[in-house]
Amino acid sequence: MLTIYSEDHRLQHGKVELTGGHFIPVVEKPERAETILARIQAIGLGEVRAPERFGTDPIARVHAPHFIRFLETAWDEWAAAHGEIDALPTNWAVRNMRQVIPSSIEGKLGYYASDCGTPITAGTWRAALSSVDVALTGAKRVAADGKPVFSLCRPPGHHASTDVYCGYCFFNNAAVAAQWFRDNGAARVAVLDIDYHHGNGTQEIFYGRDDVLFVSLHADPNVEYPYYLGYAEERGEGAGEGFNLNLPMPFGTIWDRYREALDAALARIRDYGADAVVLSFGADTFQEDPISQFKLNSDDFTRMGEILGRGLGAPTLTVMEGGYAVDALGVNVSNLLQALDGSAR
Amino acid sequence: MLTIYSEDHRLQHGKVELTGGHFIPVVEKPERAETILARIQAIGLGEVRAPERFGTDPIARVHAPHFIRFLETAWDEWAAAHGEIDALPTNWAVRNMRQVIPSSIEGKLGYYASDCGTPITAGTWRAALSSVDVALTGAKRVAADGKPVFSLCRPPGHHASTDVYCGYCFFNNAAVAAQWFRDNGAARVAVLDIDYHHGNGTQEIFYGRDDVLFVSLHADPNVEYPYYLGYAEERGEGAGEGFNLNLPMPFGTIWDRYREALDAALARIRDYGADAVVLSFGADTFQEDPISQFKLNSDDFTRMGEILGRGLGAPTLTVMEGGYAVDALGVNVSNLLQALDGSAR
Repeated sequence: MLTIYSEDHRLQHGKVELTGGHFIPVVEKPERAETILARIQAIGLGEVRAPERFGTDPIARVHAPHFIRFLETAWDEWAAAHGEIDALPTNWAVRNMRQVIPSSIEGKLGYYASDCGTPITAGTWRAALSSVDVALTGAKRVAADGKPVFSLCRPPGHHASTDVYCGYCFFNNAAVAAQWFRDNGAARVAVLDIDYHHGNGTQEIFYGRDDVLFVSLHADPNVEYPYYLGYAEERGEGAGEGFNLNLPMPFGTIWDRYREALDAALARIRDYGADAVVLSFGADTFQEDPISQFKLNSDDFTRMGEILGRGLGAPTLTVMEGGYAVDALGVNVSNLLQALDGSAR
Repeated sequence: MLTIYSEDHRLQHGKVELTGGHFIPVVEKPERAETILARIQAIGLGEVRAPERFGTDPIARVHAPHFIRFLETAWDEWAAAHGEIDALPTNWAVRNMRQVIPSSIEGKLGYYASDCGTPITAGTWRAALSSVDVALTGAKRVAADGKPVFSLCRPPGHHASTDVYCGYCFFNNAAVAAQWFRDNGAARVAVLDIDYHHGNGTQEIFYGRDDVLFVSLHADPNVEYPYYLGYAEERGEGAGEGFNLNLPMPFGTIWDRYREALDAALARIRDYGADAVVLSFGADTFQEDPISQFKLNSDDFTRMGEILGRGLGAPTLTVMEGGYAVDALGVNVSNLLQALDGSAR
């Protein structure tokens, strides 16, 4: 399987995130992508290629232009006010305030962010742009010959919505890629999100549309991030009604339970008749993931890959999302990719 | 002038707040109220009396019952999950998420909070309840004999809205007191907010009502907290249209400019014909305040008090809000109170 990878991901290396009332080192770190790349090369999964440059036009198909401009200038505005320290929001625009965009950088951060775990650094803009390029280069290859491709995106993307960044995500790589498929010949696109966390950003972006189906398997948001989206009753709205399928599962979920949800997801995707599939792949369903509560083991990722390879039924771009158990991350990711590649042939 | 004070404010003593990308000691600290009390006693402003207990019923007149219950149980839920560390939210429910209340404490904090500067501690609930009692005891005395009273509230209140806490504020002491005046014989109540920061909570609570006028002098929210409310164009809605007056001013504002806004505020309040006035008094307009950008000096607080005493035209309860230059805080507060008391007689 072809892998798309750029070293530019290293430009995003935040220092701390806020959790449990104190700072911890940011869980989403460069070693994640590096260990996945090393494993892919070690097992000879296939060629590793650098991305093409696509610029911001494809991003503006799913993100608000003012949000893109904000991310481009946020670090410089922040550093001018606060110096060389990672940018974190202090306060934010909630339901009983107005949705206005202040001119000060503190006010902008609070408008565009929704957590204290996604630092904007000197390299964030370039890393986020590059991560989209990795996704789009993969999409272009999938569209060209129908073979599965792995876009080793970092930073991840599925929490980023039209104009809000959060959950270590800035641009929604999977959503940009799904839109690119739509804009380049695919009439119907499905995004299947198997990250442990609900892909709130992808859901929000496509919630009113029937040309992109969103299906997500994830931890119950009632007890897990992102908390305010990802419930089973969210089925889409307007033209999109019925084209959003959330399959939340409880803490402690093991393979048998997970597989049932996966089968339901695949049935929906086949029924939909997608021309292309974007697989938002997080390996944080792993039992030793430091911030997650599912109980899949490394062999389960092989099982998952086999089922996905047989069941997706359309050319598939796999986009890397989360997964934070760095020691096992390479094995878990490559297990899924090898099985998906093998069973899809 | 009678002062109402309770030592229970000391129960709220948060350790750190997030600002500029790092933690600093919480600026809103017990020494604030202690230095004000010491100065009041030193100059013999008048009797200092402990508050009566009012319970939560008067609070529920302006805050949502589910919000009150949240504050009552938040610390225990948090400590059970995270131990004895101040509770700070990690992520929050912004515009493109749903306004659902998750069952986990992290999800609840993100639903009910709007900043990382307002830690919930083991003593927050009792301190916040006591601060309301201080305000209500003052209101009851004002209603009884019409003489001015100073409620030395801490924690402050004016940023707290119907169901969101922030800006060091949990319950909106001024709003609870204003509602108490309404419920105890006053047909029309005015809240004049002269804290450096806009009183977004008070505005939100009374925005649709014409029986409580809200007038606020504050720093331009385009460049200052709370950023998403406090703009001049916010004039109230529905029955409340025309009964909200925001007078934002730029960084560096000195007395001459401030006085013009104060005159406009007093003209509006006299025109309204309030039966009672709640003065939300923050001394953070002071030139040496560590988190503020206005340039009033200690004598300006005397001038302010004289103008207020002559101009408010109705029995007045003064409720303490912000002010963080602890060394000068006692003098600045007592300067205003002495002048207000003297000129009101």
